[in-house]
Amino acid sequence: MELLKKKIRDVGRVIGDDILKVDSFLNHQIDVEFIDKVGKEFYERFKDDKITKVLTVETSGISVAFATARYFKVPVVFAKKTESRNIDDDVFESQVYSFTKSKEYKVRISKMHLNEDDVVLIVDDFLASGSATNSMIDIASQAGAKIAGFGIVIEKVFQEGGNKLRESGYKIESLAMIEKFEDGQVVFYK
Amino acid sequence: MELLKKKIRDVGRVIGDDILKVDSFLNHQIDVEFIDKVGKEFYERFKDDKITKVLTVETSGISVAFATARYFKVPVVFAKKTESRNIDDDVFESQVYSFTKSKEYKVRISKMHLNEDDVVLIVDDFLASGSATNSMIDIASQAGAKIAGFGIVIEKVFQEGGNKLRESGYKIESLAMIEKFEDGQVVFYK
Repeated sequence: MELLKKKIRDVGRVIGDDILKVDSFLNHQIDVEFIDKVGKEFYERFKDDKITKVLTVETSGISVAFATARYFKVPVVFAKKTESRNIDDDVFESQVYSFTKSKEYKVRISKMHLNEDDVVLIVDDFLASGSATNSMIDIASQAGAKIAGFGIVIEKVFQEGGNKLRESGYKIESLAMIEKFEDGQVVFYK
Repeated sequence: MELLKKKIRDVGRVIGDDILKVDSFLNHQIDVEFIDKVGKEFYERFKDDKITKVLTVETSGISVAFATARYFKVPVVFAKKTESRNIDDDVFESQVYSFTKSKEYKVRISKMHLNEDDVVLIVDDFLASGSATNSMIDIASQAGAKIAGFGIVIEKVFQEGGNKLRESGYKIESLAMIEKFEDGQVVFYK
């Protein structure tokens, strides 16, 4: 998605060897008009896949999931990271290691909101090592739901999570693929 | 908003004396079409207030904020709860006590994304004791931003947060106001 690459070039900031800050439009301030276009793009790429739900993990994926699900006219379900009185005890649960926060945490989806009739599109802001996406695969599998594929805004190709998913046969649509960071600049994969 | 009251009556679940679970459409599974209507309603109620940004606290407010901001054609900024490498060090910070999680935490907004030219609409899924909304007032005040008002999906009137804000002169638009829970049922304020 050329518009996204331009946005990353214009306002993304590379920190060190591995961090790309896109907090001005994606995961802190949200450029709503732009994220709506991201949602439309995912819709175009998965519209024939009979999606019944858009899945993500809180927090940064929620706005992208919402924008995407609006085009599909289906609900979002987002996995919760923390124990909360707002969620039932009867949950599907999995483990994630967060690269940006350097810690492990559990994610949960209530059994009420995912089942074997669902065909899910899993979306997220970033795909790097793939730990968050793997937790979603785990949870979808526990629920017996079918995974149509993954809609990723920014894939860090050098961290291999995406390639492992492709090798497992999943359909991955990444709107921007980053090969590496060089001299504080983003080098796109293609 | 009658549609919201109907939704709460139909699928909300009262737990004990103080918890209303609306995880089937608001804060775990998201009924996107419905939340879009919530966003439109907030737009109607604040459209003359020259809003430049919609503010919320992660996580449950994000989808409502996104839906609202789409009608206003302005960005969302959501306050972050946790330390993250995705946020700058240079932040406005405040303290929140979470009723549903029974703990204190800090919320932060990068100084890059809020300033004295902003007129903000603060939205959230629930308003109870008002701790989260007070943290947003604190942060907006640190930034010198003007607060146009609050768009609240569900206000628990018996917890006084909303009334304290009204006494302070703020415009509060709550789409459903709950007076109390009685025999496992919701009693609306009006």
